[in-house]
Amino acid sequence: MREDNDRNSSLPGLAHAEDLIPVAGGGLLHRRVFLRRGAALAAGVASGAALAAADSASPADGTLTTPPWMRKPGLPFSNYGRPSEHEQVVRWISANPAVPGNGISWTPLHELEGTITPSGLHFERHHNGVPQIDPADHRLLIHGMVKQPLKYTVKDLARYPMRSDLIFIECGGNSNAGWREEPAPQPAGFIHGLASCSEWTGVPLSILLEEAGIDPAATWMIAEGADAIAHVMSLPVEKAMNDCILALYQNGEKIRPENGYPLRLVAPGWEGVLNVKWLRRLELTDRPVMSRNETSRYTELLPSGKARQFTFWIDAKSVIMAPTHGMTMPGTGYYEVSGLAWSGRGRVTRVEVSADGGKSWADAALQEPVLPRCFTRFRMGWHWDGAPAILKSRATDETGYVQPERDALLAERGRNGYFHYNAIVAWEVSADGRVTHVYA
Amino acid sequence: MREDNDRNSSLPGLAHAEDLIPVAGGGLLHRRVFLRRGAALAAGVASGAALAAADSASPADGTLTTPPWMRKPGLPFSNYGRPSEHEQVVRWISANPAVPGNGISWTPLHELEGTITPSGLHFERHHNGVPQIDPADHRLLIHGMVKQPLKYTVKDLARYPMRSDLIFIECGGNSNAGWREEPAPQPAGFIHGLASCSEWTGVPLSILLEEAGIDPAATWMIAEGADAIAHVMSLPVEKAMNDCILALYQNGEKIRPENGYPLRLVAPGWEGVLNVKWLRRLELTDRPVMSRNETSRYTELLPSGKARQFTFWIDAKSVIMAPTHGMTMPGTGYYEVSGLAWSGRGRVTRVEVSADGGKSWADAALQEPVLPRCFTRFRMGWHWDGAPAILKSRATDETGYVQPERDALLAERGRNGYFHYNAIVAWEVSADGRVTHVYA
Repeated sequence: MREDNDRNSSLPGLAHAEDLIPVAGGGLLHRRVFLRRGAALAAGVASGAALAAADSASPADGTLTTPPWMRKPGLPFSNYGRPSEHEQVVRWISANPAVPGNGISWTPLHELEGTITPSGLHFERHHNGVPQIDPADHRLLIHGMVKQPLKYTVKDLARYPMRSDLIFIECGGNSNAGWREEPAPQPAGFIHGLASCSEWTGVPLSILLEEAGIDPAATWMIAEGADAIAHVMSLPVEKAMNDCILALYQNGEKIRPENGYPLRLVAPGWEGVLNVKWLRRLELTDRPVMSRNETSRYTELLPSGKARQFTFWIDAKSVIMAPTHGMTMPGTGYYEVSGLAWSGRGRVTRVEVSADGGKSWADAALQEPVLPRCFTRFRMGWHWDGAPAILKSRATDETGYVQPERDALLAERGRNGYFHYNAIVAWEVSADGRVTHVYA
Repeated sequence: MREDNDRNSSLPGLAHAEDLIPVAGGGLLHRRVFLRRGAALAAGVASGAALAAADSASPADGTLTTPPWMRKPGLPFSNYGRPSEHEQVVRWISANPAVPGNGISWTPLHELEGTITPSGLHFERHHNGVPQIDPADHRLLIHGMVKQPLKYTVKDLARYPMRSDLIFIECGGNSNAGWREEPAPQPAGFIHGLASCSEWTGVPLSILLEEAGIDPAATWMIAEGADAIAHVMSLPVEKAMNDCILALYQNGEKIRPENGYPLRLVAPGWEGVLNVKWLRRLELTDRPVMSRNETSRYTELLPSGKARQFTFWIDAKSVIMAPTHGMTMPGTGYYEVSGLAWSGRGRVTRVEVSADGGKSWADAALQEPVLPRCFTRFRMGWHWDGAPAILKSRATDETGYVQPERDALLAERGRNGYFHYNAIVAWEVSADGRVTHVYA
């Protein structure tokens, strides 16, 4: 496990260079910090690094000692690599003790960087475990209100035209701890890590649906997985025809078993439960199937007594991943506030960061390329002067939608919520450097 | 291991729909094949899938049997996922029997899709094995012609501003089988798979060099790795200041041991040997170090008797990954010709494909986003009519450079070449469907 302090330790007594330009309250810095030629920044960070050299592994005289791993040949080649034994970054499992295949595992987003989620750390949500599918015996049936029912082997599908897209998938239940009365005492990934981002490659679903020939009266498509509960969900035909993909590959290689091997329905920008894993059946109908997971679950009871249903879309969200709850800031000085933003409705156009609990905001730098329905990494320079601070981030997407404060989300949805929580997240930094999840 | 035939089997007797529009000789098809609403294509592919349903695992009556994995709960959650046991896609190791840590392992590019290389399959080139580095005892020293030598721990570095980039790394010796008199009888990945593409995240090197303060007379930077040969290479200071990254993360997680954990110099677009792994030292100088790997190796003796040296750049290259040598086409009909293109000098602007050995060419579809110095996936629809064919691809990059035919490359460089082979690759499809690597 990456030490939480990795990002925020070891540089003693950072001087605050005059060129680190404040842009909002609490020490937020102009994004020139991220310009390639950061001469001014360098001046501000320099002294610490020079001082840090005074340790046993490297004398302070400008030379290096020879470490033990340079005194002997290294390990041989490997057919399939693994992380260093010094890294213990893993998914955090939260499963039903009585039904071990029912539950979730969280992507440790606060221990990752960039935008790609390694496939081994992609979040899991299973209702009855991971089926061990032999692809030679797997079939996809398209039937119901079609001109001709069609059945495909995995090899059949692999011969169709493909496309690749960098797309996030987020569980509709992600971040649901936000509905609780008290803030969950967990780091970012174990509150918001039911979201992951991969390059998915597969066959545009429209090609197969047109091959089967959809009855014009068909308005819904029911997708069924080959797991032991035969997980089943309904999607409008319009979505199926518009941009769904029958994915065979994830991050270059065949989809991992826990993410739907050998075939997953990817519904870009829509909640994870619709991205049916181990896909085996697509039935065209004129009404939704009204399964448990689209009636009693993945819906929201509003204050009016009515319930929101078929709330497919993932609205814009952002979360600061570093610093995060549980960390301790080792001292004052320069830090990078880094996080992820995403929207199911398109591109993230703006992420603002506040260090004073929302009184003032400044634009974070967005890592290019900013792609639609893909994780966007944002970064913000921050000079922490040691005073208590509250860090927040706020995403805006290309539809103009702005991520709401928690109070606004609660006012709209009430206290019966469980799904689709996307409010602004706040981390409080106390004078002793401890970082805590707060509602603020 | 993915069966080579995966992509090209099982669809019997594909009709050639009139809407599959020929655009060049040998059956190459217009890229409307890749438009999202492929109604015309669907009509062309339909009959096969319907017929294919007549098998024991799925009766032809439009129903599905219940497979064994739906009759019992699936496997529980896992902390770190792995590929299905039905997939045996691995790096192919070619190491020195006397020195097991000296050699290479190939990325099986012909078994992958999209553009991201999973970190576990990123190619390896080691001179004396993979050092097992404890990051707590690893140091980076910047010294030589600088105002102040500086030394950093890994934690120090993690506190600097970071950036992320999707970047390929290619070994200068990749594809060197092309210099042989006879075409190597191997699939694409085991000739051209010393190239991989990852999202790298780290600190822009310019920030640290400016912090150390470069003497204006310094023109070179010598980079040294912490492996047992202390691998050392020289780069011009201009490159170091322009776009080099000190990478800490690869595809979201910490760099894998075999790719430089905990710290790698990434020199975008330049040959792999310069992307020094396990980086421990950067020395600013006014001359290159003239190490073995920049004098007797990674240079090219020309017909004139002069040698090319410091040939840093990776020129534009493309390779068709499917179909490839060793496969057998199961029959006539629709196929997707799919491959990768890249250039160290920027974006790939065009990939053309030929099915008649170069007599006629047509533009392939390029998967968006097309990023500079990143793998670009290209796809081309192809109706194979059963006649012998020779498939080629040809990349053009944003500088206007066009990937050369093999004859042209040999005329320029002669027969003493070993490095920087980027000529057009040809796969011959014989009437019986067998695919063979040829010079054509």
